[in-house]
Amino acid sequence: MKLITDAFEGDRLIGFFLIKDLQQKIAANGSEYFDLVLGDSSGTISAKLWDITDEHKETYAVKKIAKVDGIVTLFRNQKQLQIQRIRLSLPEDDIEIQSLVQKSDVSREELWQELRMFLEEIYSPTLNKLVKTILISKETRDALTTLPAGMKMHHAYYAGLLEHIVTLMQSAMQLFPIYPQLNKDLVLATCLLHDIGKTKELSDPISPEYTTEGELVGHIVLGIELINEAAREVGIPSHDEELLALKHCILSHHGDVDLGFGSAISGKLPEAIFFHYLDQIDAKLNAMKMSFKGNSEEWVYSPMLKRKIRNLNRE
Amino acid sequence: MKLITDAFEGDRLIGFFLIKDLQQKIAANGSEYFDLVLGDSSGTISAKLWDITDEHKETYAVKKIAKVDGIVTLFRNQKQLQIQRIRLSLPEDDIEIQSLVQKSDVSREELWQELRMFLEEIYSPTLNKLVKTILISKETRDALTTLPAGMKMHHAYYAGLLEHIVTLMQSAMQLFPIYPQLNKDLVLATCLLHDIGKTKELSDPISPEYTTEGELVGHIVLGIELINEAAREVGIPSHDEELLALKHCILSHHGDVDLGFGSAISGKLPEAIFFHYLDQIDAKLNAMKMSFKGNSEEWVYSPMLKRKIRNLNRE
Amino acid sequence: MKLITDAFEGDRLIGFFLIKDLQQKIAANGSEYFDLVLGDSSGTISAKLWDITDEHKETYAVKKIAKVDGIVTLFRNQKQLQIQRIRLSLPEDDIEIQSLVQKSDVSREELWQELRMFLEEIYSPTLNKLVKTILISKETRDALTTLPAGMKMHHAYYAGLLEHIVTLMQSAMQLFPIYPQLNKDLVLATCLLHDIGKTKELSDPISPEYTTEGELVGHIVLGIELINEAAREVGIPSHDEELLALKHCILSHHGDVDLGFGSAISGKLPEAIFFHYLDQIDAKLNAMKMSFKGNSEEWVYSPMLKRKIRNLNRE
Amino acid sequence: MKLITDAFEGDRLIGFFLIKDLQQKIAANGSEYFDLVLGDSSGTISAKLWDITDEHKETYAVKKIAKVDGIVTLFRNQKQLQIQRIRLSLPEDDIEIQSLVQKSDVSREELWQELRMFLEEIYSPTLNKLVKTILISKETRDALTTLPAGMKMHHAYYAGLLEHIVTLMQSAMQLFPIYPQLNKDLVLATCLLHDIGKTKELSDPISPEYTTEGELVGHIVLGIELINEAAREVGIPSHDEELLALKHCILSHHGDVDLGFGSAISGKLPEAIFFHYLDQIDAKLNAMKMSFKGNSEEWVYSPMLKRKIRNLNRE
Amino acid sequence: MKLITDAFEGDRLIGFFLIKDLQQKIAANGSEYFDLVLGDSSGTISAKLWDITDEHKETYAVKKIAKVDGIVTLFRNQKQLQIQRIRLSLPEDDIEIQSLVQKSDVSREELWQELRMFLEEIYSPTLNKLVKTILISKETRDALTTLPAGMKMHHAYYAGLLEHIVTLMQSAMQLFPIYPQLNKDLVLATCLLHDIGKTKELSDPISPEYTTEGELVGHIVLGIELINEAAREVGIPSHDEELLALKHCILSHHGDVDLGFGSAISGKLPEAIFFHYLDQIDAKLNAMKMSFKGNSEEWVYSPMLKRKIRNLNRE
Amino acid sequence: MKLITDAFEGDRLIGFFLIKDLQQKIAANGSEYFDLVLGDSSGTISAKLWDITDEHKETYAVKKIAKVDGIVTLFRNQKQLQIQRIRLSLPEDDIEIQSLVQKSDVSREELWQELRMFLEEIYSPTLNKLVKTILISKETRDALTTLPAGMKMHHAYYAGLLEHIVTLMQSAMQLFPIYPQLNKDLVLATCLLHDIGKTKELSDPISPEYTTEGELVGHIVLGIELINEAAREVGIPSHDEELLALKHCILSHHGDVDLGFGSAISGKLPEAIFFHYLDQIDAKLNAMKMSFKGNSEEWVYSPMLKRKIRNLNRE
Repeated sequence: MKLITDAFEGDRLIGFFLIKDLQQKIAANGSEYFDLVLGDSSGTISAKLWDITDEHKETYAVKKIAKVDGIVTLFRNQKQLQIQRIRLSLPEDDIEIQSLVQKSDVSREELWQELRMFLEEIYSPTLNKLVKTILISKETRDALTTLPAGMKMHHAYYAGLLEHIVTLMQSAMQLFPIYPQLNKDLVLATCLLHDIGKTKELSDPISPEYTTEGELVGHIVLGIELINEAAREVGIPSHDEELLALKHCILSHHGDVDLGFGSAISGKLPEAIFFHYLDQIDAKLNAMKMSFKGNSEEWVYSPMLKRKIRNLNRE
Repeated sequence: MKLITDAFEGDRLIGFFLIKDLQQKIAANGSEYFDLVLGDSSGTISAKLWDITDEHKETYAVKKIAKVDGIVTLFRNQKQLQIQRIRLSLPEDDIEIQSLVQKSDVSREELWQELRMFLEEIYSPTLNKLVKTILISKETRDALTTLPAGMKMHHAYYAGLLEHIVTLMQSAMQLFPIYPQLNKDLVLATCLLHDIGKTKELSDPISPEYTTEGELVGHIVLGIELINEAAREVGIPSHDEELLALKHCILSHHGDVDLGFGSAISGKLPEAIFFHYLDQIDAKLNAMKMSFKGNSEEWVYSPMLKRKIRNLNRE
Repeated sequence: MKLITDAFEGDRLIGFFLIKDLQQKIAANGSEYFDLVLGDSSGTISAKLWDITDEHKETYAVKKIAKVDGIVTLFRNQKQLQIQRIRLSLPEDDIEIQSLVQKSDVSREELWQELRMFLEEIYSPTLNKLVKTILISKETRDALTTLPAGMKMHHAYYAGLLEHIVTLMQSAMQLFPIYPQLNKDLVLATCLLHDIGKTKELSDPISPEYTTEGELVGHIVLGIELINEAAREVGIPSHDEELLALKHCILSHHGDVDLGFGSAISGKLPEAIFFHYLDQIDAKLNAMKMSFKGNSEEWVYSPMLKRKIRNLNRE
Repeated sequence: MKLITDAFEGDRLIGFFLIKDLQQKIAANGSEYFDLVLGDSSGTISAKLWDITDEHKETYAVKKIAKVDGIVTLFRNQKQLQIQRIRLSLPEDDIEIQSLVQKSDVSREELWQELRMFLEEIYSPTLNKLVKTILISKETRDALTTLPAGMKMHHAYYAGLLEHIVTLMQSAMQLFPIYPQLNKDLVLATCLLHDIGKTKELSDPISPEYTTEGELVGHIVLGIELINEAAREVGIPSHDEELLALKHCILSHHGDVDLGFGSAISGKLPEAIFFHYLDQIDAKLNAMKMSFKGNSEEWVYSPMLKRKIRNLNRE
Repeated sequence: MKLITDAFEGDRLIGFFLIKDLQQKIAANGSEYFDLVLGDSSGTISAKLWDITDEHKETYAVKKIAKVDGIVTLFRNQKQLQIQRIRLSLPEDDIEIQSLVQKSDVSREELWQELRMFLEEIYSPTLNKLVKTILISKETRDALTTLPAGMKMHHAYYAGLLEHIVTLMQSAMQLFPIYPQLNKDLVLATCLLHDIGKTKELSDPISPEYTTEGELVGHIVLGIELINEAAREVGIPSHDEELLALKHCILSHHGDVDLGFGSAISGKLPEAIFFHYLDQIDAKLNAMKMSFKGNSEEWVYSPMLKRKIRNLNRE
Repeated sequence: MKLITDAFEGDRLIGFFLIKDLQQKIAANGSEYFDLVLGDSSGTISAKLWDITDEHKETYAVKKIAKVDGIVTLFRNQKQLQIQRIRLSLPEDDIEIQSLVQKSDVSREELWQELRMFLEEIYSPTLNKLVKTILISKETRDALTTLPAGMKMHHAYYAGLLEHIVTLMQSAMQLFPIYPQLNKDLVLATCLLHDIGKTKELSDPISPEYTTEGELVGHIVLGIELINEAAREVGIPSHDEELLALKHCILSHHGDVDLGFGSAISGKLPEAIFFHYLDQIDAKLNAMKMSFKGNSEEWVYSPMLKRKIRNLNRE
């Protein structure tokens, strides 16, 4: 079965897809149609289903799985699927939603093992205990290991957040020998927990939306709250120097306050400054990689950088 | 005894003063001197004590009270006291530090009574309980009712924070009939708690300095932490709509995130938008009033506005 | 007859509407259609009339009243009326344009009475005379009491400017006891006259456009010109302190110059600073209220704030 | 008699100077001294008079003329005069204040003749009449032909404003053949009147200060007021297209509103855009020329550009 | 044959046009169409060709010439051609691509003659030799005399860059008598070479695209490279003062670095400051002129200024 | 012999120091003194020599070595040396200037060896050849291995630039396994050459000043010029993809153009984005480390970050 990123203009695409977005619209001739976003494990494609009926409207919805047969066309340089036949998947099709979701290259299990290994590199009893306490919660652990790192910008796929965290920990480990002045425990704990608030900001990993908490409090402060709860649980006093330093690194990880990207405080520790740039590297390189993926053009538009970027390594 | 704000160029000033700042310096001729800031209940004045000895160095320090005799001169349009005689205050002088600190015009007791009265206007059981729980702590209450609202910019005097809070509550109460769409309980709780984190950010009311927590976490998030603790104590669940709304108003009270003034989230509730501007009015009008105070000039420099401002009402 | 804000997806809407905008377009199938904005006393709705003829083109135009029968659909989460039948209103329909225009909640007459009452609170002979002289002109008075406060952002409805002014005066009156240092006469005159230049900037209250003066001079300076004319008429000298202060408050009411929002000078009087924020509160709270109106969603997009805002009070 | 700009480190400087600034200060050893700015026709120099007496304090003041004998030293790379002898000028010295003021290279009379000649190039009866009406006022004419163009930045010398205006008119005349689409009359009238409000913003040409009007209204709007008065006097209606265009060019001459340099409206006419840049060229080239003057260094600090600039043409 | 700028709503337009852009799209009814931009010597128009076939897709492409018959309609206030008949131009039509390209008002030959004349005004042997060496290259000369000055903003037509350069030289020559402190040779060489890098940044004059060099290096630094090559060729040492000054003027010609418009260094020479504003005048006045062209409206939207501008001189 | 960073308030400091800055000033009592900056291998200290004579003025100058005896005092929280005895160093003192210059912790020789080793990791023949060609020049190599990376901000000591480069190469090597999409050769060459223009921007390693080229062209473009020369020398064509990519990484290494930090182009390659942040990490961590050095305070002011930073690791 051909995957979305392998299908090009003129190809016929038949298979099962997850409905990731569905908008009911009226064409200029007055007839109604669906404007859809379909997904499989390789990526997403926008699609049109023309001349829909009431039955269509009742049958299809976001998060349902459909079997689709259509032709790939180009619309404003984007691939678009013109659906010719569609039906809902049946129990006998035996399709699991998990198989239709874009994931990181490394398996979630491997990433999780790696994260656990890095955990053992946090020697500070305080920080080690704190991190483990947070990860003991099944709810947090499940969210942390399945959510994307964000809605659109970078690591925007199943378990993207976990991949982002593990990559940051790897990078940090690699750079510690070069910057021995850094407090290794503090940096690793920051890598692991900097976006922990996203487990409360985003609703679910398949088609995430912002929660009320996410909109009103934001993931940075939601993360601080999770940390405070864990600290209290294991008896770390609120004035503990390491706890304060960890919270500082998280509160400042969007860069200087006056840049207006949402840090609550400007970085005042080498670890905070270091982590901010490490996070930028990982977010932007991932965003660029995803923009290049399945794209054979020399120049590709990057939504994150808001400019065209160049793919030196395309085959 | 003449007060600082009543003394002008050429006047002799004799009295007891609190040493608010003391720097030991070397004059161009190699001799040592003190560069001081002295305070009484009316304000502060910079002062010089020339040709100091080792005894001077051992005797005088910040927060001590000294009896001083000197002449007021002008230096770059600022009053400066040339000290001619100085001694530490003695027990028999019977001078209390409280009597040498600048305070708001209204007494701390009256402000506190007024605050308690406004508390009864918070009818929401959740918010009422939350606020009262926070104020039950003697430590918090003492800090809240003695600290300045800030180091320099506005309400920078003993109990300035309390005055700021009470004034905001008064203003809000006055405007509720005009904007009935506002949730009164939410706005009043925001007035009361928006700067509650300053009770942990600033060290003490007489000569406040930033605490480690203040530098690393900042008063906005410190305030959220105090609120979370109180909520947990009285069993308000973390998803409670009113609790989230209150935290939102506090997290956004420095204005839109992209302005870069340190809000962690941009205001998304009418109450948040309303409170931000109310806070700006009170902060800036107080700063201008303090700049005008004891100044007979038509135009006065305002450190908060960074420009000259005009005193229409000087006598 | 159902009103626009009471009609939801799937409803049939029959009634008289004011044509507020009309664009002739060509559909992708080559046929022509009207893209309309229709209004009644409750608000506006976009509408489509498909397959139009030359007769349609000659018959319908902006500011005409039409009887319309159609079905409400949703297009990109906005309501859209699919017109099925349409005709111009006839004399025997006895529909007045006034009845199809969105207005403030309080009647224009009541607002005008209130404004006149506040006028008597301006005790300064100079400012009182000045304001009254400006309001004596029937042309100015008519414009001031019928225009919206702006094209789109806030109080964008019939007599919205008058409602904005009266609300500001009410707010100011409520806050005077709290900020006794403010010159009450100056603030009230500023409330009344701060947007007086809009009477020359906007062409008419029903479907306002910018005048040439409005585009080239702007309402702030047009307002200063109206004030200067009135001052000359009643013999207030151009150096009069109160006149200068009033002009200063108006010239600075868009905030500090370096923010780039069009103030000609940065505020240097407490009254100017105070008024700027008061104006912001009223503009933004009104804009949010209008965004919430007739919208049952929890989160609503606010064009003024350029973000989603939350409606705590929806039923 | 040696002029200020001809005196270098180590030189003795004897002559008559205008006291342009005088501050009484206290040295670190407790003795009092004057910190002065002295001026002659070539420029200004800072000066110190040590160990002053009460007689000194009563004798010397800003705008007085003094005969001074001193040695030029260098302080932070700036020339500074160490005064050894000083006395007030006497009637028999026969020194006129005019001879001690820095002026433009071209005489005020010649500049005035040139301005009058350009006036005849304004063929539009409306604009011609308007400009002449403004110049008929002796008060305005005197101010316009003696004031500096600003306090510090550019053309900051006697009749600098006149020189600035005439240079702009010359430049505009030179460029008209190249940009024939420009309305010549409009541009010339803008050159002449763009800073006319400075005649009310600045107090006097010898040691100018901001007037109350200048601080509260600003020279841009003060200029509009002068133009409106003249228009009314000669019966130009307020809706006159040329009058509106002229006011637009003046209101927008500080560049786009969102740059925050104080334009009340952004330029919407080619003449407005053209004039803004012409004004920038003249202001900045004059500022750089004045920074180079009397300075033999290769690199000179420019207060206007806030960076070091290079003098290619120094001898 | 009617030209594009002379055709208005409802007109029939028949003639030969250059296909400047061609996008294949799918209409809401599923049929395919071309979205085209057609050009002739007067300007460009967007056009639609409905219901295209495979033959259409194979026949038409960018840079081909087509004979078209269609009706002008209005779509969102922009003219749009509804194509009814179309065919490729045939050899016997004898249409040259040159005749279908928008050009400057003055002929390329005249502009070139004028440029050569100005060259003789560069008396500095170094700069004269440098400029001539660059212009000796046929490739550079051809590009310089045919390219637009930019893709869209200003002088965006055949030989627009040459016209821009010559106009700048004319303007500079006119202003030299007024600013004698300017180094004339340096300014003229800057006019000529400031955009010389565009000869490598843009691919071709008819339908220019950015080259890889253009995207990765940018025209400013590409220009510096061309100058360095020429300097080496004729033996001008890299430390030559005039060479450095020329490079400085080019590197700073987008204004101060901190404005973020791409200057590599902020202007530190009067010639650099002067040239920056001269360039701004010519770019913006040209952009406004092109926006007005063939537009009979009083107010026209300017893409360069991002606001509506006013045409005082329309007939 | 005690080093500067080991001397605290009250200590006597005797030894040889390099005069890094010398300003002649006049004290408030009229006597002359030297305001000096003295340096040894551990850092710098400001110093005063009171009551200087003509002999002093003739004897001492920047870059001379003096033997000094003085007492360390505190002035505004900065250490300051009060010189009691001073003489120039004599040949028999046998003091080399090299021994009095602050250096990186790793020896210049080791750094150079490491750089050479990394060179061998650049496998691309083009980039390898290019880099080696540049390093063959003894002048460039000497400058590259002795200069500071900047005047003040980071790595501001002898061979600081070399240390900065080598550290960047180490960091990059460590991160390559994590970001395999990066072109390793391109990143390493960028590390090595990104600041190569500083070899022409700064005059000498001991007391560096900006050269004329540095001021007028800036180190980014000076670096591009060096690269172009080397490319020509070894016959790499100007359109070579790797050459263009390298130049792009260097031209964009100050971040996005619109931030206004002097990049000539915004980063469009993953390598460019990656390098920019890597460079930020190294610059800022080094600046913070140098601010902490020899400072026992908990909070230290960082000139680079313009805020107080916290030293978690002080002993």
